[in-house]
Amino acid sequence: MSGTTGPGERTDAISRLMKPRSVAVIGASADPTKTAGRPVAYLTKHGFGGAIYPVNPRAELIGGLKSYPDVRSLPEAPDVGIVLLGAERAHEAVRELAALGTSAAIVLASGYTEVGEEGARRQQQLLEAAGPMRLLGPNTIGLVNLTDNITLSATGALEMAGFEAGHIGVVSQSGGILGALLSRAAARGIGLSKLVSTSNEADLDMADFVDHLADDEATSVIALYMEGLRHPDKFRAAALKAARQGKPVVVFKIGRSESGAAAAVSHTGALAGADRMYDALFREVGVIRAQSFADLLDLPAALASSRRLQGRRVAVLTSTGGAGTLVADSLGTSGFETPPPDEVTAAALRALQSGDHAVLDRNPIDVTLAGLQPTLLRGAIRALLASPTYDAVVVIVGSSGLAMPDLMADAIHDCLPASDKPLLVYVSPHAPGIASLLNQRGVPAFMAPESCSSALAAMRQTTSWRAPAARPALPPMAMDAEWPVGALDEAEAKQLFARFGVPCVRERIVSDAAEAMQAARAFEGPVALKILSSTITHKSDVGGVAVNVAPAQVGERLARMASDVEALAGVRPSRFLVQEMVASGGVELILGFHRDPLGAAILLGMGGVTAELLQDTVLQMLPAGGLTRGEAASLVRGLKTWPLLDGFRGRPPADVDALVDAVVAFSQMAAVLGDRLLEAEINPLFVLPRGQGVRAADGVAVLQPQGSQGDKS
Amino acid sequence: MSGTTGPGERTDAISRLMKPRSVAVIGASADPTKTAGRPVAYLTKHGFGGAIYPVNPRAELIGGLKSYPDVRSLPEAPDVGIVLLGAERAHEAVRELAALGTSAAIVLASGYTEVGEEGARRQQQLLEAAGPMRLLGPNTIGLVNLTDNITLSATGALEMAGFEAGHIGVVSQSGGILGALLSRAAARGIGLSKLVSTSNEADLDMADFVDHLADDEATSVIALYMEGLRHPDKFRAAALKAARQGKPVVVFKIGRSESGAAAAVSHTGALAGADRMYDALFREVGVIRAQSFADLLDLPAALASSRRLQGRRVAVLTSTGGAGTLVADSLGTSGFETPPPDEVTAAALRALQSGDHAVLDRNPIDVTLAGLQPTLLRGAIRALLASPTYDAVVVIVGSSGLAMPDLMADAIHDCLPASDKPLLVYVSPHAPGIASLLNQRGVPAFMAPESCSSALAAMRQTTSWRAPAARPALPPMAMDAEWPVGALDEAEAKQLFARFGVPCVRERIVSDAAEAMQAARAFEGPVALKILSSTITHKSDVGGVAVNVAPAQVGERLARMASDVEALAGVRPSRFLVQEMVASGGVELILGFHRDPLGAAILLGMGGVTAELLQDTVLQMLPAGGLTRGEAASLVRGLKTWPLLDGFRGRPPADVDALVDAVVAFSQMAAVLGDRLLEAEINPLFVLPRGQGVRAADGVAVLQPQGSQGDKS
Repeated sequence: MSGTTGPGERTDAISRLMKPRSVAVIGASADPTKTAGRPVAYLTKHGFGGAIYPVNPRAELIGGLKSYPDVRSLPEAPDVGIVLLGAERAHEAVRELAALGTSAAIVLASGYTEVGEEGARRQQQLLEAAGPMRLLGPNTIGLVNLTDNITLSATGALEMAGFEAGHIGVVSQSGGILGALLSRAAARGIGLSKLVSTSNEADLDMADFVDHLADDEATSVIALYMEGLRHPDKFRAAALKAARQGKPVVVFKIGRSESGAAAAVSHTGALAGADRMYDALFREVGVIRAQSFADLLDLPAALASSRRLQGRRVAVLTSTGGAGTLVADSLGTSGFETPPPDEVTAAALRALQSGDHAVLDRNPIDVTLAGLQPTLLRGAIRALLASPTYDAVVVIVGSSGLAMPDLMADAIHDCLPASDKPLLVYVSPHAPGIASLLNQRGVPAFMAPESCSSALAAMRQTTSWRAPAARPALPPMAMDAEWPVGALDEAEAKQLFARFGVPCVRERIVSDAAEAMQAARAFEGPVALKILSSTITHKSDVGGVAVNVAPAQVGERLARMASDVEALAGVRPSRFLVQEMVASGGVELILGFHRDPLGAAILLGMGGVTAELLQDTVLQMLPAGGLTRGEAASLVRGLKTWPLLDGFRGRPPADVDALVDAVVAFSQMAAVLGDRLLEAEINPLFVLPRGQGVRAADGVAVLQPQGSQGDKS
Repeated sequence: MSGTTGPGERTDAISRLMKPRSVAVIGASADPTKTAGRPVAYLTKHGFGGAIYPVNPRAELIGGLKSYPDVRSLPEAPDVGIVLLGAERAHEAVRELAALGTSAAIVLASGYTEVGEEGARRQQQLLEAAGPMRLLGPNTIGLVNLTDNITLSATGALEMAGFEAGHIGVVSQSGGILGALLSRAAARGIGLSKLVSTSNEADLDMADFVDHLADDEATSVIALYMEGLRHPDKFRAAALKAARQGKPVVVFKIGRSESGAAAAVSHTGALAGADRMYDALFREVGVIRAQSFADLLDLPAALASSRRLQGRRVAVLTSTGGAGTLVADSLGTSGFETPPPDEVTAAALRALQSGDHAVLDRNPIDVTLAGLQPTLLRGAIRALLASPTYDAVVVIVGSSGLAMPDLMADAIHDCLPASDKPLLVYVSPHAPGIASLLNQRGVPAFMAPESCSSALAAMRQTTSWRAPAARPALPPMAMDAEWPVGALDEAEAKQLFARFGVPCVRERIVSDAAEAMQAARAFEGPVALKILSSTITHKSDVGGVAVNVAPAQVGERLARMASDVEALAGVRPSRFLVQEMVASGGVELILGFHRDPLGAAILLGMGGVTAELLQDTVLQMLPAGGLTRGEAASLVRGLKTWPLLDGFRGRPPADVDALVDAVVAFSQMAAVLGDRLLEAEINPLFVLPRGQGVRAADGVAVLQPQGSQGDKS
């Protein structure tokens, strides 16, 4: 955007934006109850230590500070200018701030791209006015730096006091959501470091701040509210940087109900879906997706403890039966185990209790009988943390958390140094006091039983994620004049796939009944007969596919097919394919290539006509070097129907090695062709019993001439 | 249990238990901080108007009330006795209360069935001591009647004050959860009528209180926390009674991760699953299942408004962009639509706003620009409620809900009389004040965006549920001596199904290669060959199935199969089935009968080897009269793969009429055989193209002799 600044300066400008020494507030109001009065009032109220320069020609003093009539009158170039003027005038202030040498401006006005074309023109004007100065917004609520008590924002949430400075950095593409997260975190005692609302992202976007927070010492977890990514590659790089620094990134992304853009000729696009592409991107870079809005605070709160979850066995310690069962049930649903205590641990727990009624052969571990005393609680938590049977401990706080929040919170907090296993708390009654105390002291405390399991699942995901193996990009392949371009017909598509090493069925192109009969006799057994066309994409919908045709009947069948297709599609087909039938016992898969604004991906799924109904598919972003065999193998094993390939119920095991080879070959084709490949799909890909390989039995591909721009990215 | 009381007296006893005129508290402590001190203290504190009789031989006065040395000294038979003694002595007090003519006792002690066999004996002793007196517990926290300010409970949640009396009745099988719900509802301003913890359910169980609340004038919605049902038929009757009274029942049931009991010979049990049987039961009686614990309060809060949702179109009115998008996205995921305002409504909205920047061609409908004033809000809500474009309105409350909760709550509440469409609120920042105000005034207000959609989905479910059609039970069929019993072999099972009208493949039983060749020649085309055995249940696992065998090769194939099966199963098969092959083009389904403690059910699903992997199944409780054609048809249409039967992608439409007939016939068989049928399953059931019918190609059944008791119920 600001093309003249180098990367170093850019980073500097963002650092100054996040932690300015001086702030000018253009269009500040002397009335702190007005939105335009808030930034100056909040800066003062929350303890900003730098210089504040209100700019307002109609006021002498604002919040007790000298007000300047215009930007040019400012005593110095401020690090940051907050522009509170409306969209009609904001660009003028921005131009003046830039001329002064301001590092960054924050523009709060709305009325830009979000309101249509006229707004988009206004936004372009704003960007041009900024020149080399960085811009946050427009249509942003600003940013809040709790680490350094700096509030560059008009969010009404700052009316509250007593924010907890902590280790969670927040980037939100919505200003309202920033305010919601700020006030909700404060109420829960969850500490945040920085919050930024990027909104229209005319210049600075979500990726810039992920990149910044990855380096921010106060930040150990990054939470994102995402509506959509404008620069996926920048985001990818920033997220990988955060992962390398050991800082988990959690995202809540809306748009789950969006369907994929229907591609021209293949099903892959619809199966991949716009939202599933985000999932694939998140998996690629180790970003954890929050499944509910509450999880956008709950998961970071758990991850900020920096404890590592090494397994799936969880002790649930309770003094109130029902809530323990509730949490254990939710853990079970999420794939965690709650084994009973081992002998040594049971003995340790028994020794703590005065009575001898405690039933210690089960988990949840119920310590109701001896009456819940802090000493007992402390001892029990330590025994469970020390037990080799457990990877994590969830403590249930019941009504004692209402009656004596401090004593209980102390007792739990005291156990933190005993172990580095995750220690989580579920608060069963409405007891915000103890939840807040615990969160403030670094013990994640949740009000929903489901949050305990989603938090542990996120910790598990962080522990098990591995960065994609570095590998060189494949050299682009020159396409000579022989290569077809445009939408290939089925025969051409399979020739393309075969060229890269994907085995295909044997077939012949014929144009009439006689040729078809002759071709069929060359194969043993029955054949498949199909129309060959690059324009009719769903052949079976127009009666253009017949399988298991006896060679002697091929001629007659061809004639009938020609009539059927003509009747249904309005075109009389002139070319046909006669194909060998693949022996029965094969499993039908779909293998596809999909490109959307987020990048290119490989899709593998159950194939055949049921593919779209059963939606058993896996999707993986395509690295520039294609997939490794390991990646292809784990893609295959990710299918729900994987057991079908693996000797399920006495079936012959399928040739998984050959399938993995084919997936790798197909991915390499896509990597080598790069932007020239618009769509590609094999459906079905038959996977035969072990030793017999795979066969692509149908395929589509769309290529564009070398050098032309992909029209879909 | 208390066999000598009639139904009338039973109801009376429960009414007296819920609203006693006098309460004795046996084992009351004079120290109100002890658990045994709480009931008397709470009764007084929360304003019980009747007589309180503390019983404690070591105290003169308890909470300022005369204490009685023992039960016999009480001045009258109390309506209710709360027994606070330990398990060792509770039965004595219960016996004395019963002797006095007390209506019902509440026993708080633990140490009964929940701790094993000795406890179970103690519980039996307690029940016998109660005689005709009704018993709540043991191991219960008691009950709370907020309608009448009566607290018969020791739950620590009663330390709070200011409970909101309302219209939601709660029955919980856990005392801790009762306390959690009580305190959480109070914090949210959600009004409850009665809360009962049934816990061990030695006598009174969840169904008794559902039945009672169905008649309770103060209760309009019933919320249940369920661990498992002890008397499913009683629950069924009570839930249907509540439905008939127009009182929705919402349940949160744990045990989602439980797998089904593996049945002896069929897959149906594993596919049905213990938890899915609960789902089927809930659907049958119109009970709504809460998907998260928070929903157990949120859905009843919405349903208590008694507004009816007539469609799926929702207006989202917001003054803060992000939160509106969040709610709209969640609505989209749940199948709701958010269409833009119609012309008339847009004009009405435009007339309200001073500025003219508002973009009114979209939904969420954003009223930020004009600044959010209560007058504007009131006008906008009324316009949206009046619009024929919308079936419901969700209002997003932003930071104005923090700044001026009363004004905003008033503005929203004022709109209630304008329409009977649902009006819901999502509170975006942490602003418990306005949420509480709104809930108190009958406007459901939620803190989670997902709750808005789950609440609307629950309202939709209530509107669309229909009671099962009444139909006579089928007369039981006498089984003559010819009927086989025990585990039937495949041929016998299909004969049984055929007897009730399910079409089966043609087949012959053979014992050697020669017979097999002869049998195969009787069918045209290739045949299927299988071992015939009532002990080897998974034939294909031991190599006992061959399909598409050419008649000429049947003899050789039989010899090979005999060797294979002997090698794998250790038994040389002596009998085989030669079956006609079903023409290709059929869809393979599984049709099964399953019985578990909840009752009998019919399962229909995608069949073949992939059934267990894809889990595309539907389950319905079996009425005594079998399924109607309508019920069978909606079962079929409930399959994810239903389009496969309905002419998907140029496939020939399947013979759905014949399938429906077969499902009805199979269900009637199950209804007629009743307890004598232990298991039954057809897998696969081939559904052929329209006009060609269906064929059961394999089946299992287990019958027991008439008059013997089912060993699985």
